Amino acid sequence: MKALVIGGNGFIGSHVVDALLLSGHKVRVFDRGAELYRSPLVDVDYRLADFSDVSALAEALVGVDSVYHFVSTTVPSTSNLDPISDIKGNLINTVRLLQLMLQNGVSRIVYLSSGGTVYGIPDISPIPEKHPLKPICSYGVVKVAIENYLFMYQSLHGIKPVVLRVSNPYGERQGHSGVQGVVGTFLQKIKNNERIEIWGDGSVVRDFIYVFDLARSCVLAGESEYCGILNVGSGVGNSVRDVLDISMEVSDCTMKPMYKTGRAYDVPSVVLDVSKVRDVLGWQPRIGLKEGVTKTWIWLNSL
Amino acid sequence: MKALVIGGNGFIGSHVVDALLLSGHKVRVFDRGAELYRSPLVDVDYRLADFSDVSALAEALVGVDSVYHFVSTTVPSTSNLDPISDIKGNLINTVRLLQLMLQNGVSRIVYLSSGGTVYGIPDISPIPEKHPLKPICSYGVVKVAIENYLFMYQSLHGIKPVVLRVSNPYGERQGHSGVQGVVGTFLQKIKNNERIEIWGDGSVVRDFIYVFDLARSCVLAGESEYCGILNVGSGVGNSVRDVLDISMEVSDCTMKPMYKTGRAYDVPSVVLDVSKVRDVLGWQPRIGLKEGVTKTWIWLNSL
Repeated sequence: MKALVIGGNGFIGSHVVDALLLSGHKVRVFDRGAELYRSPLVDVDYRLADFSDVSALAEALVGVDSVYHFVSTTVPSTSNLDPISDIKGNLINTVRLLQLMLQNGVSRIVYLSSGGTVYGIPDISPIPEKHPLKPICSYGVVKVAIENYLFMYQSLHGIKPVVLRVSNPYGERQGHSGVQGVVGTFLQKIKNNERIEIWGDGSVVRDFIYVFDLARSCVLAGESEYCGILNVGSGVGNSVRDVLDISMEVSDCTMKPMYKTGRAYDVPSVVLDVSKVRDVLGWQPRIGLKEGVTKTWIWLNSL
Repeated sequence: MKALVIGGNGFIGSHVVDALLLSGHKVRVFDRGAELYRSPLVDVDYRLADFSDVSALAEALVGVDSVYHFVSTTVPSTSNLDPISDIKGNLINTVRLLQLMLQNGVSRIVYLSSGGTVYGIPDISPIPEKHPLKPICSYGVVKVAIENYLFMYQSLHGIKPVVLRVSNPYGERQGHSGVQGVVGTFLQKIKNNERIEIWGDGSVVRDFIYVFDLARSCVLAGESEYCGILNVGSGVGNSVRDVLDISMEVSDCTMKPMYKTGRAYDVPSVVLDVSKVRDVLGWQPRIGLKEGVTKTWIWLNSL
């Protein structure tokens, strides 16, 4: 299989590239820039252009069997500042991608949606895929719209989408600028000998998934014939305070954190019901939170 | 109350203007063109500009208490041909409207959503508001995204949205070009002494709501304090063949229709559960299908 990984030089995409190569697939990467933390891989065909560059994207689709779409021009915490840019950068460009796939006869697409935002404030926990979609940030609204277009293009034009609603991924090569990903942000602060800042009281609960595990699920999803929606997460809830405790333990850090006012868009608890992905793909996570944080800490100190 | 009716010269908008004036409100209309079937009304402040014209829209919002938003640049049957135009024309321009409302201190908005498309193929009938949203055409995908942004702007910025998910409106001043509205289309064909064309076997069931009744519900919604989602329809299912029979009876027509291949985007049956709007607004429809079709036929023959 020849896979096009859009956003393949990013955090999640680069791990999916590794997992695809490991499974014997040919890989082409479409991204606007090179990987931040590694040199280009010998076995990968890189196409560097912006996701909005229609002709470059059309060219990248030639000869491809499946598309893995990991590009996002926004993150949940900042998407509300400019929803129109969010709509243009993500929704419109993704619909254009679907049109280009049709023109090039490519039907299979693995799309990374957001288990943390599409459900909004959950009615039950863990959250199954059939839970109502009530996103409360632009990032989630756009993800829902993209999901809907994917399945509309399935019924009208034969596109074969598998949507992975992912919980909170963390691990090697995640950015740690502070806008996304508490694990990376905490560990970077510790490495820099800076105080960790916590929004709210640290009671916010998330479902943390190690990026190697997530990447395996993406490849399995793309290799399967399954069309539909799958939650991908650990299925286990951990508070931000849990992550703090583990991060401090793993790094032998004793500095006390600084607590700041909570953020309006933070849903109190998001834990995904991952029984469907286990049944459909035979996938389940292998790396627990402590092991994953330890690996991430080792990587961060190798930079 | 001073109301801004965006799309107030269109089919539904013009009836809402009438209903608002009847209830003693001041009315400003924002539309790209004049009414097709009537001269401008003396009591209305008209602002003619395109919905995408930011400065004209900002000016139109000055001094307004509430906004009624009836603009749609697409219809369900054609929205799939160019989803990107649909997103730009409707979603982006509506998010910009919300931003302009915030800047002008206007919080109340009545938004017309689509009971016929947001639910997709319904699991149950009649369809309650809590039914999952599974739109299968671009028109419906965009309506869902707009609804989500309305409630996001409520929680983040205090916008006060009431969303009316309307079934199939018909009546005086509806266009009858054949792209939307079987009642108008059938009656116009009969008037022209042309054969009526039916997509499929005429078994498709819809919930037809007379536009006077719909306009009353819009005004009641805007006058109320209610924020949330309300289905607005007759709550009764009628097949396209029912509409045909009634149209032929009302007009003394005997010409046999022509049956054509069904359309992929036609959901087999859509009937709305309208118990919530009755409880919340005390509204229910007054005009049945036969009476409404008769009124529409009389109007059409007065042109």
